[in-house]
Amino acid sequence: MSEQEFQLTCPIPIQQYPTVVMAHGGGGRLMHQLIDKMFVATFGGNALRHRHDSATLVIPTGRLALTTDSYVVRPLFFPGGDIGKLAVYGTVNDLAMSGAHPLYLTLGMILEEGMPMETLWRVVLSLKEAAERAGVQIVTGDTKVVDRGKGDGVYLNTSGVGMITHDLLIAPQSVQVGDVVILSGDIGRHGIAVMAVREGLQFESPIESDCAPLAEPVMALLRAGIEVHCLRDLTRGGLASALVEIAESAGVGLVLEETRIPVLEEVRGACEILGFDPLYVANEGRFVAFVPPSQADVAVQVLRHCEVSAGAQIVGEVTASPPGTVLLRSVIGTSRVVDMLSGEQLPRIC
Amino acid sequence: MSEQEFQLTCPIPIQQYPTVVMAHGGGGRLMHQLIDKMFVATFGGNALRHRHDSATLVIPTGRLALTTDSYVVRPLFFPGGDIGKLAVYGTVNDLAMSGAHPLYLTLGMILEEGMPMETLWRVVLSLKEAAERAGVQIVTGDTKVVDRGKGDGVYLNTSGVGMITHDLLIAPQSVQVGDVVILSGDIGRHGIAVMAVREGLQFESPIESDCAPLAEPVMALLRAGIEVHCLRDLTRGGLASALVEIAESAGVGLVLEETRIPVLEEVRGACEILGFDPLYVANEGRFVAFVPPSQADVAVQVLRHCEVSAGAQIVGEVTASPPGTVLLRSVIGTSRVVDMLSGEQLPRIC
Repeated sequence: MSEQEFQLTCPIPIQQYPTVVMAHGGGGRLMHQLIDKMFVATFGGNALRHRHDSATLVIPTGRLALTTDSYVVRPLFFPGGDIGKLAVYGTVNDLAMSGAHPLYLTLGMILEEGMPMETLWRVVLSLKEAAERAGVQIVTGDTKVVDRGKGDGVYLNTSGVGMITHDLLIAPQSVQVGDVVILSGDIGRHGIAVMAVREGLQFESPIESDCAPLAEPVMALLRAGIEVHCLRDLTRGGLASALVEIAESAGVGLVLEETRIPVLEEVRGACEILGFDPLYVANEGRFVAFVPPSQADVAVQVLRHCEVSAGAQIVGEVTASPPGTVLLRSVIGTSRVVDMLSGEQLPRIC
Repeated sequence: MSEQEFQLTCPIPIQQYPTVVMAHGGGGRLMHQLIDKMFVATFGGNALRHRHDSATLVIPTGRLALTTDSYVVRPLFFPGGDIGKLAVYGTVNDLAMSGAHPLYLTLGMILEEGMPMETLWRVVLSLKEAAERAGVQIVTGDTKVVDRGKGDGVYLNTSGVGMITHDLLIAPQSVQVGDVVILSGDIGRHGIAVMAVREGLQFESPIESDCAPLAEPVMALLRAGIEVHCLRDLTRGGLASALVEIAESAGVGLVLEETRIPVLEEVRGACEILGFDPLYVANEGRFVAFVPPSQADVAVQVLRHCEVSAGAQIVGEVTASPPGTVLLRSVIGTSRVVDMLSGEQLPRIC
């Protein structure tokens, strides 16, 4: 589809409203048109169509998982993804990390006055596609507009509701000494993909974000009867921060084998140029699973059968001491303590 | 408590971190400190304390209501309220308008680099107080920081989960010809309170926002056996936009008696100065209820027993024609058609 043809797909006439104006958030006709024509018509679903203040959902009895995330990534579009995909997958993945089956999303949009209508339409289409891929419904939403200069195009918030259908307590407190740490694939791609665009870096082959929905591999582990102790996606702060957080919460030690942690050659190179450590770079489609040693090999096989975790590897194990500490054993056999960053390495990557 | 004493209550040492910095959203130690010390410790609750990616909730079987709203009010503090109260009551009220009993909130914060830490602490305390008053738990949250100039202090998003324990369909499609329209109190205070601060208007007695949680009067109606057909809170776009929306969705006409719509003298005066029509001014603690004529008087009595709806009045009725049209009968007996605004009257009042 040509650029011009694409523009014609936009349900708001771009000639007439080339940009978002304050009135698109003012509660009047313009806001209703934007919501009805662009959002409700695109995302579909009965709950949304009723256009009441909240969506009504019938939920089977049981445990629910509830999560929320705001998305402020800059730029809005980057190799392998965009803010719309992040907003769906990020929240779906938080649900999956509780072992929950993601069902419903809410969508809050904070638009900046002057944002091109066409850009908004691209984001909306991306949200729709991502929701379809992740198998969730966007059931209710809200739109606000802030003055020019008081936002950055668009900020999104999604909250997610999922059903928990297992009896496990998937959380740091379930982690046990001896547990095996499985990493679902290579790390560092999302953060580097975003930073490369921002810093204007050129690579021979562009590094694409790993952003992807993770419920499928998690459900596969549970279906296979793996007694999953803890799951964590490796977003802000990367693999290092996630593991330090778990080690501290669980009061255990972790030992990682550096050679087993997959990092693409291009990502390693970009990290050297930018002065980053891949262990701390954000991912949006990677997670760690803590499982009993007796089930580790089966778990790896199950994960490798799913596309998004085809590169699953055992990368370490849980030790009794020193509690709260993550040790990284290097190629040459030396060990160093991995700490959480005190500040930020990469601002606004999600 | 003196200003200095208040500052000492802030769990983040203000001397050391007088403002929000990018690292407070970076996924490292600083972010964890902010979340643990300021948010988790203040809002409390077991779900939040586990600090996992999502909260796990046990929900009795049945219908759930789910809603989301972002809050971008400017200024953050105004007579009678602030962004924290709005973020709790606004979302709780959306749940109440489905006849749902509000249970849980999520909280997404987008902080601007450079925001005074003390201001953030004031907002957090206000969120806590409002959640207590509304009887809801903040169970999960997320914090992002955007660069200086790319936000406006703080934007909040709350999503809400509520239980529906009645068998009614409280929605525009349940509205019937003959239904009585009850308004829960005087209108226009919230929008005018915010605009007065923004425009530097001085009144003899300051106009306070009406912002308040509305689940109590709704639950009282349901407990009293009132067959509630539709409920709607009168936020952006005010009473006029809410009624036009319902008339259009339900395909019915509405006739309102202007003399029965309570507006404070000070609000009327401020509207004249600012060139606003109180019918279109936003409220944050007012709603309309559509009930069968046979139950209207009882419903008014029930509402008047609740503090937030003590000024409840019958203001109009549902007619067969003309469908989708709201007619306002004036003091002198003339009628005019009330339309939805095309754009915004008051930007960023919620």
